[in-house]
Amino acid sequence: MEKQALLYEGKAKRVYQTNDDQLVWLEYKDSATAFNGEKKEQITGKGRLNNEITSLIFSKLKEAGMASHFVEKLSETEQLVKKVQIIPLETVVRNFAAGSFSKRLGIEEGRPLSKPIVEFYYKDDELGDPLLTEDHIEELKLATKEEVAILKEKALEVDALLTKLFQDIDIRLIDFKLEFGKDAEGQIVLADEISPDTCRLWDQQTNEKLDKDVFRRDLGNLTDAYETILTRLGGTTACSK
Amino acid sequence: MEKQALLYEGKAKRVYQTNDDQLVWLEYKDSATAFNGEKKEQITGKGRLNNEITSLIFSKLKEAGMASHFVEKLSETEQLVKKVQIIPLETVVRNFAAGSFSKRLGIEEGRPLSKPIVEFYYKDDELGDPLLTEDHIEELKLATKEEVAILKEKALEVDALLTKLFQDIDIRLIDFKLEFGKDAEGQIVLADEISPDTCRLWDQQTNEKLDKDVFRRDLGNLTDAYETILTRLGGTTACSK
Repeated sequence: MEKQALLYEGKAKRVYQTNDDQLVWLEYKDSATAFNGEKKEQITGKGRLNNEITSLIFSKLKEAGMASHFVEKLSETEQLVKKVQIIPLETVVRNFAAGSFSKRLGIEEGRPLSKPIVEFYYKDDELGDPLLTEDHIEELKLATKEEVAILKEKALEVDALLTKLFQDIDIRLIDFKLEFGKDAEGQIVLADEISPDTCRLWDQQTNEKLDKDVFRRDLGNLTDAYETILTRLGGTTACSK
Repeated sequence: MEKQALLYEGKAKRVYQTNDDQLVWLEYKDSATAFNGEKKEQITGKGRLNNEITSLIFSKLKEAGMASHFVEKLSETEQLVKKVQIIPLETVVRNFAAGSFSKRLGIEEGRPLSKPIVEFYYKDDELGDPLLTEDHIEELKLATKEEVAILKEKALEVDALLTKLFQDIDIRLIDFKLEFGKDAEGQIVLADEISPDTCRLWDQQTNEKLDKDVFRRDLGNLTDAYETILTRLGGTTACSK
């Protein structure tokens, strides 16, 4: 497999063309951003951690039968994935109240929800990723009603799998964000990443935050938190360590 | 009927007890507020206009079979209504993009929607009346799934009736907000008011705004705009004029 021209550079990843036009090469960057890019920092090692964690999680989801764009880990910071057309929705699943959800609805952080809630946000930086209702999604032609039903179903499936996966390593899955894309056959598959950048992960015993809130809220060392997640998941520590 | 103790004072109305414990006495105030109370003004005649317009509209809705709290107009600024327990949701129906909807989703003002959209907002000044999904409503126990379905159905029924009513007087119904309550029997009925305070109403020919946006956006004389609506609806002009 050959890494070719840069196709796209996002806040956390670079996407390169390969010699196979069905596949792209992902490179995880060492940058951390929050609040729609207002807070920004370079954090050495973050790219590796997110790549390792995402690769591990997507592999486990694949074993459990969840179709995704993931093909294989290529290096500490690189992944080979199927080229998909990303649906411009952030699909958020919440098991406990936290973050914007808590503020928005006046529910204290950490309160368990009576059942998992799936929300959709419009992936649009200029608009500040607004919350959408299903009617908004239809009006904006971002996805059909049938596709929204598939996204919800898949999101809840991923939630069940991840909740169990994290429970086994003594971590509470508070909430997380997914992105989905359509593959060459038009099938909806899980895409993007699943990492402490996209999940809220709290230690089951101490409630210590082991996710991007460490960066958002200046709670300590981000790579220490992410390293804890990787180690508990059974991942390998850095070559340089 | 006897006007008794003040039960509640809101931004636009006062609610008084009566000698019948199933009925309350509403008094429309001359105050205009916008942006969650940040912009405020006393506007002589506004209370009368909203009471006259709401009374007219609720009478017409009643004729069309739409159950509501409305009993009768008592004076230029007063109404007798059934006592209901207000459901803490603002039910918004949109036929054209405008206001917060346009800003939120990046859709230009005035663009017709492919079909009417019903939205729910949490009636909570402290939280700034946030947009809710149906799952949020269920989680917050503001209404059951069945009640939400009833609210939607009734809102769309009101939309069809009002769209026709305003079309006949050469006005385009852009969007509007409804509130519903439960009566003594637990039935969901339309409540609150329907006036240029709660609707966006544009002249069909000129697109002139004949609603609270005149106040929100400093577009001219509010009572002139509201008087136009009342006159076109066939209402009586003020005694003092």
